[in-house]
Amino acid sequence: MKPFISESFLLRTESAKRLYFDYAQNERIIDYHCHLVPQEIASDRQFENLTQIWLGGDHYKWRALRAAGVPEDYITGGASDWDKFLRWAEVCPLTVRNPLFHWTALELNRPFGINDRFLNPSTARPIWDECNAKLATPEFSARGIMRQMNVELVCTTDDPVDSLDAHRRLATDFESGSFPVRVLPTFRPDKVFPRNCSTPEGVVSYLVYLAKLSEASDVDISSFAALRVAFAKRHAFFHSVGARLSDCGFELFQWREPSAPASLESSFARLLKGETISEEEIVALSSALLVDLGRLNAEKNWTSQLHIGAMRNNSTRVMKRVGVDAGCDSIVDGSYGKQLSRYLDFLDKDDKLPRTIVYNLNPDANYMLATLVANFNDGTIPGKMQYGAGWWFLDQKNGMEEQLETLSNTGLLSLFVGMLTDSRSFLSYTRHEYFRRILCDLLGGEMEAGLLPNDFEWIGGIVRDVCHNNAARYFQF
Amino acid sequence: MKPFISESFLLRTESAKRLYFDYAQNERIIDYHCHLVPQEIASDRQFENLTQIWLGGDHYKWRALRAAGVPEDYITGGASDWDKFLRWAEVCPLTVRNPLFHWTALELNRPFGINDRFLNPSTARPIWDECNAKLATPEFSARGIMRQMNVELVCTTDDPVDSLDAHRRLATDFESGSFPVRVLPTFRPDKVFPRNCSTPEGVVSYLVYLAKLSEASDVDISSFAALRVAFAKRHAFFHSVGARLSDCGFELFQWREPSAPASLESSFARLLKGETISEEEIVALSSALLVDLGRLNAEKNWTSQLHIGAMRNNSTRVMKRVGVDAGCDSIVDGSYGKQLSRYLDFLDKDDKLPRTIVYNLNPDANYMLATLVANFNDGTIPGKMQYGAGWWFLDQKNGMEEQLETLSNTGLLSLFVGMLTDSRSFLSYTRHEYFRRILCDLLGGEMEAGLLPNDFEWIGGIVRDVCHNNAARYFQF
Amino acid sequence: MKPFISESFLLRTESAKRLYFDYAQNERIIDYHCHLVPQEIASDRQFENLTQIWLGGDHYKWRALRAAGVPEDYITGGASDWDKFLRWAEVCPLTVRNPLFHWTALELNRPFGINDRFLNPSTARPIWDECNAKLATPEFSARGIMRQMNVELVCTTDDPVDSLDAHRRLATDFESGSFPVRVLPTFRPDKVFPRNCSTPEGVVSYLVYLAKLSEASDVDISSFAALRVAFAKRHAFFHSVGARLSDCGFELFQWREPSAPASLESSFARLLKGETISEEEIVALSSALLVDLGRLNAEKNWTSQLHIGAMRNNSTRVMKRVGVDAGCDSIVDGSYGKQLSRYLDFLDKDDKLPRTIVYNLNPDANYMLATLVANFNDGTIPGKMQYGAGWWFLDQKNGMEEQLETLSNTGLLSLFVGMLTDSRSFLSYTRHEYFRRILCDLLGGEMEAGLLPNDFEWIGGIVRDVCHNNAARYFQF
Repeated sequence: MKPFISESFLLRTESAKRLYFDYAQNERIIDYHCHLVPQEIASDRQFENLTQIWLGGDHYKWRALRAAGVPEDYITGGASDWDKFLRWAEVCPLTVRNPLFHWTALELNRPFGINDRFLNPSTARPIWDECNAKLATPEFSARGIMRQMNVELVCTTDDPVDSLDAHRRLATDFESGSFPVRVLPTFRPDKVFPRNCSTPEGVVSYLVYLAKLSEASDVDISSFAALRVAFAKRHAFFHSVGARLSDCGFELFQWREPSAPASLESSFARLLKGETISEEEIVALSSALLVDLGRLNAEKNWTSQLHIGAMRNNSTRVMKRVGVDAGCDSIVDGSYGKQLSRYLDFLDKDDKLPRTIVYNLNPDANYMLATLVANFNDGTIPGKMQYGAGWWFLDQKNGMEEQLETLSNTGLLSLFVGMLTDSRSFLSYTRHEYFRRILCDLLGGEMEAGLLPNDFEWIGGIVRDVCHNNAARYFQF
Repeated sequence: MKPFISESFLLRTESAKRLYFDYAQNERIIDYHCHLVPQEIASDRQFENLTQIWLGGDHYKWRALRAAGVPEDYITGGASDWDKFLRWAEVCPLTVRNPLFHWTALELNRPFGINDRFLNPSTARPIWDECNAKLATPEFSARGIMRQMNVELVCTTDDPVDSLDAHRRLATDFESGSFPVRVLPTFRPDKVFPRNCSTPEGVVSYLVYLAKLSEASDVDISSFAALRVAFAKRHAFFHSVGARLSDCGFELFQWREPSAPASLESSFARLLKGETISEEEIVALSSALLVDLGRLNAEKNWTSQLHIGAMRNNSTRVMKRVGVDAGCDSIVDGSYGKQLSRYLDFLDKDDKLPRTIVYNLNPDANYMLATLVANFNDGTIPGKMQYGAGWWFLDQKNGMEEQLETLSNTGLLSLFVGMLTDSRSFLSYTRHEYFRRILCDLLGGEMEAGLLPNDFEWIGGIVRDVCHNNAARYFQF
Repeated sequence: MKPFISESFLLRTESAKRLYFDYAQNERIIDYHCHLVPQEIASDRQFENLTQIWLGGDHYKWRALRAAGVPEDYITGGASDWDKFLRWAEVCPLTVRNPLFHWTALELNRPFGINDRFLNPSTARPIWDECNAKLATPEFSARGIMRQMNVELVCTTDDPVDSLDAHRRLATDFESGSFPVRVLPTFRPDKVFPRNCSTPEGVVSYLVYLAKLSEASDVDISSFAALRVAFAKRHAFFHSVGARLSDCGFELFQWREPSAPASLESSFARLLKGETISEEEIVALSSALLVDLGRLNAEKNWTSQLHIGAMRNNSTRVMKRVGVDAGCDSIVDGSYGKQLSRYLDFLDKDDKLPRTIVYNLNPDANYMLATLVANFNDGTIPGKMQYGAGWWFLDQKNGMEEQLETLSNTGLLSLFVGMLTDSRSFLSYTRHEYFRRILCDLLGGEMEAGLLPNDFEWIGGIVRDVCHNNAARYFQF
């Protein structure tokens, strides 16, 4: 069989091929946002089989399996790894046109070198055997795969209460030259926001979390002011271990100009007593913390990331059985532009607006968001305000193309910091390849159509910048 | 003239042609959602002329005529059938790029066999004469057209108070073999929801409707509990006559977790006294009925259809002159995702979520909705939760392509139950042809571009499934 | 170098070229909506250099410069015109895929005749010198450029308090034959709406404005009724000077069925005393004025334009430094369909709905809006209700294509009144060229693909209509 993932996969014109091969393919990967477990890199985890590395945490595949009528036992339940894999092999041929189909082919191709077969029930056994044998070798450990895939730097996503021990070990290995990939933490303080505290269970969870934060920061969190001190201390600690980005997730972005401290303290005091607070109070407390976060980021030259638009854990049944991040999340609808604009302006008017990347999940917000963030470019940093790469359900060919179109039509593609995996898996680095091919196909096609200058130095330079150099310059690693 | 609707219409690649001719073209039509009048099938109506069969109930054409400056007399008014047809022939050349243009050409081609001319004032008379002559033959009766168009099964849309007499006659004819098309009713209970009961006229209409429902169900509807009994009885009756789907239309989908029975009874008691109720009360009563509907559907293996997003009867002037469904409807904006999620989850957590197809009218909800429904696939039925075909204003080439893209990118196209006409006209079956050509063009083009496996058995099998087999397997006819 | 803006720029098929060259290219420009300063046309301004004519008021370029990290001094500040131009030349190569890139090339090509170079730092000096020399000649005065660009008619955008002196001088020159371009005012009453009057500063500004309106209209505005008289008088005055369109801008369109006069008077009386009023009162007063505007337009056969969806002046910092319209505006999200529908219906049911063009900035409203306005076509005027051209952030290739697709799929492209510049610059007429090329590319491509009749008389006629004739027929100039 002619390889499905051929050299020219996605590259429809000669110009596209030239851009990809000469300018994109060899650029090292800066994966500035992902969800790898740092301990697995630190300990250089060796995976036993394909199910563990490929299906274990992959809620995209879980959704496809459920949609195809596969019982939960074979997805997140007690079935054997082989049985789970076989079910995935049965469903895989049904995923044509879903990103899973291309991802699967790309990932079997790299790093496993399998491009003469599609995964289906008749190929499942040999693929299973061949890949598992490879997974047992040093080249296919966590670090081995990252080396193979030409990774330069990775930012994981970490809780403010995390000790960052794994990151400190990884920093030592990087500095000693024993592992060439830099691995940095990202400050993800979502749990510090009292989001679910309108319900008693939410308050209980929040107080448990505050206790951990108190311990991690060595601050007695007996007031909201103390919480802010603890928050800043953990931010400083993350900085000391190399963090240069923060990240927050939002359903709809909600923000109000900060209330008077006394009012915040009064709400927080009730929380500390175990009482629920109102949605308005939750937004007020969260808004104050978001201002703190923005200012801390600005002061330390960090980059703020905002991920907006996920409606999570919609299925009570699956939530009870499997837990969060189980593949029952979707896209929320609703307005949030004004509140986001007011937040960015509130920081900006005091010169405390950090570099910011905003990602949206609902594509109906593409234009709103791309134009909104660009209001706050201030002439200090090229590409300061970024409209981020296609995320989650938009992390596919159409979604990437739409992000590139929206950004191009309303801003400067040339200064885009480019792609990220956002992944929990060591096998996802081919998404950078996928993105690069799509980018080169778009630009090469327009060169041939006379829509772009037929100048490879110029356009190839932009390709290199978007694939690697912009990120290398933008983030203050 | 070379036929405009040629063999290869819409099929841009050789692979597309092969997919269409070998896998799509001959599949029989399962039209699981339409608005044909069952009495017209039962009585095998013979139409007198093109205006009656083509313009009589077609609010798409009415809108185009009004937009072109044609007075209402020639649209829904007292002008002669010929004069109305002539006006349509004048406007038809102005409809290029509107779906009406392709539909008109397709419908003249099939079943009338006219593909050497476009409809315009100079061709109007011969087309009128030729088609009217055909309409007088048995091949062009209601049943004759359905036979010609290779229809296997049709689901009409019916009011719970309907006697379903026509359907019972049609079932007899189907079972006796005298008519090869199965015609089944669909339970469309919109009028059971007290939607307009915040106004006195709305209450009056509702009480008139309740009287009919009371008679049809033989239940004295003196309480909300009694209404629910009547509702369930009519559902059971529809089941006995072969219904396997329900359908509800919504402006924005509104739903609240059901209130206490006493509260519902109190609202309903005021309605029965002829008093208006609040919007909140309307939503509360409707929500309870929606839960009933979902549970009844789940228990009987029916499929729920939800059509969301139409803002109806916008022109008071036309509403007064012509009535409802007069072509003055459009697309509503606004959010409803959370309420829909909570509704589906409410049913799902008790294992009472039926097969469900959701259709949206506002394309800004495509991704939100396609991802939302997929949260509730539960591993029991392949393709249980369906993101439905392009509807109404989206029932055109771009709209279909967007629906296919959205579904593909976020779910499993392979399990899609496919196209439906949603039409009031016996001439609309070519929309299945239109959809199939678009589907094959999309898949064939991607096969040639290396985006899909170049495997006709595999991809052709998906074509067959989407055109026919999935629907045949999914619905429990 | 082969010219980047070649004869066939954007025209991918032979049919597209034939449509453009034979039907589009030579049609005169009716620019029925722009922001040119009429005094500059009346005085036939001669620009000193490229910065003045090209960068002076162009907030699109300002945004790009800020995004690229250029300090404000070089954008709107005190740097020399040359230094500002040089910075723009540095940033221009970064704008590939942004509309600025094509616009820049098109504008250097026409009227300056420069198509052998791209603007960048190495070409900046010769381009500066060459263009400045041309700008000193009579062919490149304000009127000279308009003559060169084949402009037939221009509608500026004017404040109801404007004396329209410049327009009267221009009318004299047009009638005497000394200047072949007709220049008409447009009634833009945004400042008459008490929009910011929920804040004390807003009330102060409003009262200052009312004083001007009082003087211009010779009406003592001591009541809301008097304001309405003044409003109508200025409308009549604009009519006498040739105005045939009005225009209003909205963030989200808000409208309520008019309140009782006494209630409006009571709100307005508080305003006159310098008191703030509530948002509800603002909407109530504005709604009454919008009804007046619609009726006045209908009575005089004017066309209403509604521009919906801009969130303005987001950056407090830039607003303080530079002022309004400084390039810190973006797209608002949120719903407004029902209120717009109720407004149009309120006018329509009394036969007082004028010709109306609605433009939206948020593309997520494309379908909602295109279908909504078409509800009110009433069979009196072909194309009465128009879904307007791609506006502002949507005034680019994708945006235009989406507008054409949405309009085509839901209405009658054949009756579209076509493109406008919406520009503050005399160099923007090539946007008509850009639009025409895109239109012809779309239609020509579909002719070759068998989606449209291969009939140049028919399709070419539509091209001519959309480029010129529809506007000439529709507006009652």
